[in-house]
Amino acid sequence: MSVKFIENAVGRMIPEEINGKPVIPFMGVGKYKPEGRKFAPEISTCADYPLDGNKLVPNLKEALIKAGIKDGMTISTHHHFRNGDLIAVEIFKIAQELGIKDLVWYPSASFPCQKPIIEQLENGTIHHIEGSMNGPLGRFASLGKMKGVGVLRSHGGRYQAVQDGDVQIDIAVIAAPTADSFGNANGVEGPSACGLLGFALADSQYADKVIVVTDNLVDFPCIPWQIHGNYVDYVVQMGQVGIPEKIISGTTQITKSPDRLLIAEMTAKFCEEVGLIKDGFSFQAGAGGTALSIGVFFGEIMRRKGIKARFARGGSNKYLVDMLEKGLVEYILDGQTFDLDGVRSMRDNPHHVNTSPFTSYNYHGKGNFAGLLDIVILGATEVDVNFNANVVTHSDGYLLHGIGGWQNCLFGKNVILPIPLFRDRIPVIRDEVTTICGPGELIDIIVTERGIAINPLRKDLLDKMKNSKLPIKTIHELKEEAERICGKPKAAEFEEKIIAAIKWVDGTVIDVVKQVKI
Amino acid sequence: MSVKFIENAVGRMIPEEINGKPVIPFMGVGKYKPEGRKFAPEISTCADYPLDGNKLVPNLKEALIKAGIKDGMTISTHHHFRNGDLIAVEIFKIAQELGIKDLVWYPSASFPCQKPIIEQLENGTIHHIEGSMNGPLGRFASLGKMKGVGVLRSHGGRYQAVQDGDVQIDIAVIAAPTADSFGNANGVEGPSACGLLGFALADSQYADKVIVVTDNLVDFPCIPWQIHGNYVDYVVQMGQVGIPEKIISGTTQITKSPDRLLIAEMTAKFCEEVGLIKDGFSFQAGAGGTALSIGVFFGEIMRRKGIKARFARGGSNKYLVDMLEKGLVEYILDGQTFDLDGVRSMRDNPHHVNTSPFTSYNYHGKGNFAGLLDIVILGATEVDVNFNANVVTHSDGYLLHGIGGWQNCLFGKNVILPIPLFRDRIPVIRDEVTTICGPGELIDIIVTERGIAINPLRKDLLDKMKNSKLPIKTIHELKEEAERICGKPKAAEFEEKIIAAIKWVDGTVIDVVKQVKI
Repeated sequence: MSVKFIENAVGRMIPEEINGKPVIPFMGVGKYKPEGRKFAPEISTCADYPLDGNKLVPNLKEALIKAGIKDGMTISTHHHFRNGDLIAVEIFKIAQELGIKDLVWYPSASFPCQKPIIEQLENGTIHHIEGSMNGPLGRFASLGKMKGVGVLRSHGGRYQAVQDGDVQIDIAVIAAPTADSFGNANGVEGPSACGLLGFALADSQYADKVIVVTDNLVDFPCIPWQIHGNYVDYVVQMGQVGIPEKIISGTTQITKSPDRLLIAEMTAKFCEEVGLIKDGFSFQAGAGGTALSIGVFFGEIMRRKGIKARFARGGSNKYLVDMLEKGLVEYILDGQTFDLDGVRSMRDNPHHVNTSPFTSYNYHGKGNFAGLLDIVILGATEVDVNFNANVVTHSDGYLLHGIGGWQNCLFGKNVILPIPLFRDRIPVIRDEVTTICGPGELIDIIVTERGIAINPLRKDLLDKMKNSKLPIKTIHELKEEAERICGKPKAAEFEEKIIAAIKWVDGTVIDVVKQVKI
Repeated sequence: MSVKFIENAVGRMIPEEINGKPVIPFMGVGKYKPEGRKFAPEISTCADYPLDGNKLVPNLKEALIKAGIKDGMTISTHHHFRNGDLIAVEIFKIAQELGIKDLVWYPSASFPCQKPIIEQLENGTIHHIEGSMNGPLGRFASLGKMKGVGVLRSHGGRYQAVQDGDVQIDIAVIAAPTADSFGNANGVEGPSACGLLGFALADSQYADKVIVVTDNLVDFPCIPWQIHGNYVDYVVQMGQVGIPEKIISGTTQITKSPDRLLIAEMTAKFCEEVGLIKDGFSFQAGAGGTALSIGVFFGEIMRRKGIKARFARGGSNKYLVDMLEKGLVEYILDGQTFDLDGVRSMRDNPHHVNTSPFTSYNYHGKGNFAGLLDIVILGATEVDVNFNANVVTHSDGYLLHGIGGWQNCLFGKNVILPIPLFRDRIPVIRDEVTTICGPGELIDIIVTERGIAINPLRKDLLDKMKNSKLPIKTIHELKEEAERICGKPKAAEFEEKIIAAIKWVDGTVIDVVKQVKI
């Protein structure tokens, strides 16, 4: 095989095809202009569906057979249950029983609870995974053991890929905490309530066949209908579709680490000094101890100033819900609930709004609202001196994380990465990141416990902060400081084999990940 | 011109093309199976839209110019303001100013307030109207004065036509009582609140360019976002987009006519005797004095029996809202609010759910919920002895009404037409209806003040009612009774020219309307 490689706009060598399909190398932010039309699903007719609306079939196996499961198909699932999902493993066990081969699994993300799927990856039931691989499945891929190449997309990129027909889903299986027999479904009610089902929206709209599985079947109408039964082919009632207690992402406690607390406080101070925390502002802060702490600091500043935020982006959690309930935030626009307080609030509070990758993140729409955020707080495993950042691989080269909404959020007005200068004595700021997930031009501020670096492209911020008492440094100074303490980090070593591609929000390929050399 | 005509499945002669496009004659209920794929709009990119989400343009004229308005385009509007719309007339005045010709106007319905558009129909700015024509525009068409042929579709058929690409909307103009500058919009808030915007859903999803006009611009996010800004190109702020007091449909009072009251009471008694009014049942009753009275009778029966309905379909009004608030109805699934009590309830009550023609009525979906209704109450201008019914023309041949959701509702489990035996001494039950809008096989029961006719296809109902004290008669008996009183009605007389086509829910043509002979 002599695959040709092309250098993309961030200097990475991209093969001209992946999994036998041609790829477009990343061309720069906003440079690639899509041509053509959205994917057009086949026209259905009510004449082919039960007039009384009852689409129940006895079990998942029968539903998959009715949906015509066969070799080579693409099967999708959502990850609103995060590490509490009970459906994906079940699907591929059934596929194996049926002797199906070479499936593509298209989850919105995969988690350690799905480790048993390694069996189907090994025995040929599954060809490859297109989607984030958190933990063991990523390690499996990094060792070069997956038959095909993994394809990682952001939440918005996943919607874009389905909308544009880059990925055609044959069968979508949507685990739903509540549903009716017509297929209307939601995530806010029922014993397995996980919040919302936005990650399954594209799947419902564009998949050829859609199966809803639920453990809480209610009489029509299932309200709210986050998923419309009008897109659904079959409904399956089963024991338990997910474990809602396991939707927790990262930690649910604010950090107790003095370094992390310092980073959080510096981040909040920076935002205040630079004038971002003003009445009607908006912010996004994810889960994780540092991010939660930043939210708490924001709350203190807002109380002191007597102002409120117009909206905050979730993943929601009890801290954000508390701010909503105390009137510090007018709306939560939530993409996934990260704890049960988030679920409750979304169910009961009309100002806690469920969103989807379509509304929030789809780059191939007529705008999306990621760009409207005043302050965006994100993480990274590595950042380079050009502010390029990595969120998927560790410095040892293993692919252990997904992209989530990270790439999409980079379009916010002020993107801040509050990160430690080093982890386990390995510097986080480096000459070059192992994997580029986001181009530096979109990353504005790096906050570490030993200083804050502002992207030189943001002259406005540099000007505003030139008399600040905060430790404003260059990114090179931060890098050198880390290296003085930890030494120059070694680059990870790789084999030649490509094990995963990292898509940009527009469907182009920004980087690839290779097999780890062991 | 020698256009060929083909006889369709209800015996009507259908031309092989209309407005230069080929047509498929009605083939029978559920017989036409669509092939091919849904319409695929062009892929957009955020790179072409303002990153800060602000899509405001100074005025409607500029928005139309930016949207590329030109000769022959299809422009759509919604009718949630019903007779209080202020936008459609404005659009076509601007088009005339700009010297644009041969537009197709694709409203979800047109009303007497839009009578001034006759000017643009006469001067060639508009070629024809595809949509219901209530009142003067219908009369104008009936006189043979419209350049092209009107095309009437049900609410569901309109969604189907857009989804399937039968009609391609170039520019959709969506009047919104509340919107933000990103284009998110709703109908429940603001001084012009009209309830919901469901009739504009297809337009937002599939139109090439989408303009939102509002008189209540709010900061992002406009919640609820019944229309997603992610589909919107331009936002225009203007003085007043509609007069909410004019959303009233038919009458808002229960009937005082003794005959109509009798019909209403007989309808309710019939439903009770035949066993349809039971705990958890569902019903649809529109506006109009008789329908409102039936709702009141239903309420009395439910109170007496101590039962409640699982859901009721709107058009909502104060009577239905009262039933919801008193706990007689668990959910209102509402397609359009018919009074300001409906608007308030939809805004404040999560059990008053806004629906769209997609969820309720689209025949080319994976089911819709029209078929789930236990009792459907509809009107008709005429019914024939085979239970075929007409809702668009009067017996004098004039096209004065739209189809609304009427055809879609025919898929309900028990479809009842409570109608007077005659109007202005013209019998309503006839050998043949002037225009067939719905095939008799879907119409189950005709209730008149002088008797109830059950469709012979419903042997189950005939059996259940065979010992009833209600005046069960054959439809022929009813017709003869009317003719004994009023004499045999004359058929309307027509010229040869076809002035409108009546689409069935699947896009086939069930009948045509010809120019009235005067």
